[in-house]
Amino acid sequence: MSKNLLIRDAVGQILKEQREQSKLSMREVAQTAGVSLGYLSEIERGIKDPSSEIIGSVCRALLFDSADLLVEAGMRIREHELSLLQPTRRS
Amino acid sequence: MSKNLLIRDAVGQILKEQREQSKLSMREVAQTAGVSLGYLSEIERGIKDPSSEIIGSVCRALLFDSADLLVEAGMRIREHELSLLQPTRRS
Repeated sequence: MSKNLLIRDAVGQILKEQREQSKLSMREVAQTAGVSLGYLSEIERGIKDPSSEIIGSVCRALLFDSADLLVEAGMRIREHELSLLQPTRRS
Repeated sequence: MSKNLLIRDAVGQILKEQREQSKLSMREVAQTAGVSLGYLSEIERGIKDPSSEIIGSVCRALLFDSADLLVEAGMRIREHELSLLQPTRRS
């Protein structure tokens, strides 16, 4: 994969993983966070850039710290950038 | 200050500091990033939540890694949260 990892991709991935680790359904998280199911799905798939308030609401619904979300997202983007610098693996 | 530090506040602060450290004017950064001067000003003041693409463009204009931006923003929010837990200082 040579595509850049956008901030919203990394944020969406992490929010989805946190939700799955918490054994919560999208419906439960959407309801607690006060967003529609469709919008949460778009956030998790990195289709929508949520506002700071929405990220905060989803994080609270997951009992996940938004500071941890940012640090983790930054580290994933950094790892992804590094992986793009690696020589192509020979099969 | 007891107000929460939102993601866009932290992101705006850091982008502004990076621009000032680079001795670049808002006009120069706005032009290179392809955003209006007014919009860049709103981003720096934490008024607007920029999209992932706009954050990427502003970071590139500043030669600043967006992964570093996220990690730094997360750490600032964490520090701010910790500061809110400190007992009020007596004067």
